Amino acid sequence: MLQSSYAELTCSIARALEVVGERWSLLIVRDALRGVTRFGDFQSSLGLARNVLSTRLEHLVGEGVLRRQPYGRGRRHDYLLTSKGHELATALIALQQWGDHYYPGPDGPPRLITHADCGGPVTARLACGEEEQPVAPDRIAVLPGPGAAARVSSSH
Amino acid sequence: MLQSSYAELTCSIARALEVVGERWSLLIVRDALRGVTRFGDFQSSLGLARNVLSTRLEHLVGEGVLRRQPYGRGRRHDYLLTSKGHELATALIALQQWGDHYYPGPDGPPRLITHADCGGPVTARLACGEEEQPVAPDRIAVLPGPGAAARVSSSH
Repeated sequence: MLQSSYAELTCSIARALEVVGERWSLLIVRDALRGVTRFGDFQSSLGLARNVLSTRLEHLVGEGVLRRQPYGRGRRHDYLLTSKGHELATALIALQQWGDHYYPGPDGPPRLITHADCGGPVTARLACGEEEQPVAPDRIAVLPGPGAAARVSSSH
Repeated sequence: MLQSSYAELTCSIARALEVVGERWSLLIVRDALRGVTRFGDFQSSLGLARNVLSTRLEHLVGEGVLRRQPYGRGRRHDYLLTSKGHELATALIALQQWGDHYYPGPDGPPRLITHADCGGPVTARLACGEEEQPVAPDRIAVLPGPGAAARVSSSH
C-alpha cells in the first residue's frame, strides 16, 4: 500500500491508485471491459496464480468495481463490472492510446475501441467546459481545489 | 515487472503499464503535471527514499517521459515533462475524476484541472468519431485490431 502521507491522502489520483493502482487490478478491469467474466478466463488471460487472482478479484468486488452474479447450479459466478467499474474505461482507454502511440506492436494496435451504438472509433480526450472544446494535454493547469485547504496550510 | 506472456506483449495497456504502471511512476508524472521539477520537491511530495526516487526518475528519463534540464552552475537539473509525458495527462485526469467521484475527501476535490488558455474546467471523456460525440463509458466495444492477429491464432 502507499505510504499514507498527508499529501497522498488529499490526492484523488493517489486514492484511485489505492484501489486500482496495483497493476494486476488494472489488467483485470481491462479484461472485464473486453467481456471476460469468469475466473478461469481471467486466469488464462493474465497467467496469474489462482490465489493472487482470487485476492485481486475479492478486492475489486469489495470496492464495488466488480460484482458477482451466480450462474448455473453450482457455486460459480460471473464477475461483472459495476457502473463504478465501467467508469474506469476512460483512464484505461487513455493508457491504451498512449501505449499504441509510443509502444506500438509490429502489426499495429492489438485492440480497437469502438462505440457500441454506432461502431465509430472511440478515443479518450481532454475537453474544456460545456462546449467540450478539445484541449491539448500540455495546455492544462492544476489548481488547488476546495479539498486542498489543509494541504496548502500544512508545513511542507 | 509484468510476466511477459504473449497475451501481455500484444496489449498496449500492458505495455504502457510496463513504463508507468509502477505506482510511484504515475505519481511522479502527476507531480510533474502540477509543476514539480526538482528532486527535493518530488521527494517531499512523495515521501520516497532518495534511491527509490532516483531510480524511478532515471527510468522515466530513459523512456522519454521526462527530460533533464540543467540549472544554475552546479550539476543540478530540473525534470521536465516531454510531450510524451504530457500525453499521460488524459489517463491521470481520468483517474483523478474517478477518485474525486468515488473516494471524495471531506472537503471536495483537492485539485481542479483547468484549461491553461481560458481557465475553464477540463475533464477527460470518451468521444466517438470526428464529431466528438460524447460516449458513455458502458457503451464501448473492444474489437481485435490489426496487431491482434498473432494473439488470435495463439494457443490460449
